[in-house]
Amino acid sequence: MIKINENYKKLQSSYLFVEIAKRVSQFQKENQDKEIIRMGIGDVTLPIPSVCIDAMHKGVDDLSNTKTFRGYGPEQGYDFLREAISENEFKSRGADISADEIFISDGAKCDTGNFQELFSQDTIIALPDPVYPVYSDTNVMAGRSGNFANGKYENFIYLDSTESNNFIPDLPSKKPDLIYLCFPNNPTGATATKDQLKKWVNYAKENKALILFDAAYETFIRDESLPKSIFEISGAKEVAVEFRSFSKSAGFTGVRCAHIAIPKECKIWDKAGESYSLHSLWNRRHSTKFNGASYPVQRGAAAIYTSEGKKEVKAMIDYYLENAKIIRNAMINLGYKCTGGDNSPYVWVKTKTSSWDFFDSLLKNAGVVCTPGSGFGKCGEGFVRFSAFNTKENTEKAMTKIAHIAN
Amino acid sequence: MIKINENYKKLQSSYLFVEIAKRVSQFQKENQDKEIIRMGIGDVTLPIPSVCIDAMHKGVDDLSNTKTFRGYGPEQGYDFLREAISENEFKSRGADISADEIFISDGAKCDTGNFQELFSQDTIIALPDPVYPVYSDTNVMAGRSGNFANGKYENFIYLDSTESNNFIPDLPSKKPDLIYLCFPNNPTGATATKDQLKKWVNYAKENKALILFDAAYETFIRDESLPKSIFEISGAKEVAVEFRSFSKSAGFTGVRCAHIAIPKECKIWDKAGESYSLHSLWNRRHSTKFNGASYPVQRGAAAIYTSEGKKEVKAMIDYYLENAKIIRNAMINLGYKCTGGDNSPYVWVKTKTSSWDFFDSLLKNAGVVCTPGSGFGKCGEGFVRFSAFNTKENTEKAMTKIAHIAN
Repeated sequence: MIKINENYKKLQSSYLFVEIAKRVSQFQKENQDKEIIRMGIGDVTLPIPSVCIDAMHKGVDDLSNTKTFRGYGPEQGYDFLREAISENEFKSRGADISADEIFISDGAKCDTGNFQELFSQDTIIALPDPVYPVYSDTNVMAGRSGNFANGKYENFIYLDSTESNNFIPDLPSKKPDLIYLCFPNNPTGATATKDQLKKWVNYAKENKALILFDAAYETFIRDESLPKSIFEISGAKEVAVEFRSFSKSAGFTGVRCAHIAIPKECKIWDKAGESYSLHSLWNRRHSTKFNGASYPVQRGAAAIYTSEGKKEVKAMIDYYLENAKIIRNAMINLGYKCTGGDNSPYVWVKTKTSSWDFFDSLLKNAGVVCTPGSGFGKCGEGFVRFSAFNTKENTEKAMTKIAHIAN
Repeated sequence: MIKINENYKKLQSSYLFVEIAKRVSQFQKENQDKEIIRMGIGDVTLPIPSVCIDAMHKGVDDLSNTKTFRGYGPEQGYDFLREAISENEFKSRGADISADEIFISDGAKCDTGNFQELFSQDTIIALPDPVYPVYSDTNVMAGRSGNFANGKYENFIYLDSTESNNFIPDLPSKKPDLIYLCFPNNPTGATATKDQLKKWVNYAKENKALILFDAAYETFIRDESLPKSIFEISGAKEVAVEFRSFSKSAGFTGVRCAHIAIPKECKIWDKAGESYSLHSLWNRRHSTKFNGASYPVQRGAAAIYTSEGKKEVKAMIDYYLENAKIIRNAMINLGYKCTGGDNSPYVWVKTKTSSWDFFDSLLKNAGVVCTPGSGFGKCGEGFVRFSAFNTKENTEKAMTKIAHIAN
């Protein structure tokens, strides 16, 4: 008889965005004349850079002609893209990641979700709270969570990100094998300094743990003293892999392209204590279960590393950062404590009521939609997330409406 | 300490195509003046249909403008594509698969590889021999194989595809929970009749087993009496899911798009005997670990269902089938027994020596590369696979060279 993976029964319904949609739709039905401004969504709104458009057109044309046609590409990605990434994302910042340490994929959600497959069933997981749900859910599916009770899975180590630690989690008291970190953080928008990351790198080394570093929002970092890559920290190459995406840097959420950097010196052990190359292990997984990212998409991604592409990306991120600043300043002016929004597209606002009460009041009184922080984990209670992915006009309008109800 | 998934240690090196490349490169080095014709590769060679090119250009243009821009799409795929698939691939053949039973992805390799995650660790797997290695390797990684000895994993049930059963496996004596079937078959090119599939559907029903039906090559079926979908068999919707791909039908190996059909009535059980919807289970997995296929790619895929698209696809498949016929006829004329090549792009040729000896002799004497059948499993020994994915000129030249050495 065909039987289910029983671990799926432990998954909690991912009701956050469903519940938001339900409440918004109910409100809209009851107030058909009222405009609603959505400030909750983590999806980009600007068109992709024109250099990417041109490069994708060229890539599509390559497929129309026998001479330039490309069938199956390398599972790991085309060299033209891997080399551009190595040079522009890593080496230019002193992080020595070579092209063959980079694996191209169709998305960071897939990558961060799939990576845990490489590890033993009894791996002890540490993850941030609040958290991007994919880290948690995929480890539940893999049977590493234990049961859910009081807002937490019993076997996970939660790295609390709270006001008292400025949303940079402290080292845990119980020892994890696998540590998920995300900076600039989703949902809090917090960024980590080199010293803060160094502490985690040292901890991983001392404990033979591995750090999965999600840098999907690194393009938003404008403070030059902040690390964009964990590989800017010495020693990180032995204990970390990094996830990156074109989704937020170049507006590729609908185009689909991302990458992982796995240093060749990063080791992992079997139960007998013999060491293995993490790079080889992922290569085996990646080439068995994946067949390469779309060719025209890879052409489009590579274009952002041209000088024109860099300019366009900068202008796009400037635009979102300007929105983030508008949100941040407006909320601070109204007396709210805020994190993020300076080097990240998210502003994490401390509410004076519960997350959902604040959400309801904002929707009802201002017609503005935010994301209740409690949906991201226990430590998110009492916060909401505002997203900078919107037009400047809507952002300003939303903030004016919020100011109006506050005064 | 971070430890590996020990199951990876059981994987056998996938040395088939590496070994072929090594021998070909060695031969080329020693015979620099000799032309080599590659008849072994399963990758398409013709450009994608011009309607797909146009639709992809339009899709790319949509991303260049705020008004038409698309960010994250539905994880399950866009309705415009799901509806076209439901209508054209299924309903037109009497298979009642609705749009919301179809999940779009970036490839059938990913889909056939990932699907096993839904099932319990102790699931008993039946798979064809010879086999597409992804079915096997992904279940090894998941810990369902046991050890490898004498060319087989001890816990797998192998469905022998041999001359004596015309390469259509018999029902197994030991009962499996999960059954992989692939028709038209890779590598043998064999096709199954409705009666033959009906036998498997009945067997699955009787045993509460599930069939994973890989129909990646269905477009090559020209004999109207043969089923293109397992859902043409009554009762199949309760016990089967089907994997399809645009890779071979529209030349999308580098573009990346595929789909799975999961009927809503297909049930699966937990260990307490309670039933679950397989469709819901996959929906949870798919939306947790995947973020939708590329938007311009989905536009391109949908274009093959226009009347012009259908004509172009037919012409493309005609071309490959003509090559397959040339191979098949040539080999039969030389006294070899052949399967496939009539309703499939692969011709499975019985050799008079071992697979690798035949390969070496063909390379050395004719400069033609085929794929040794033994690389696909124990039952592949004594066979080689020829692929129709080539130019007609090369196909004819290769067959002339082979005839020359035979005479």
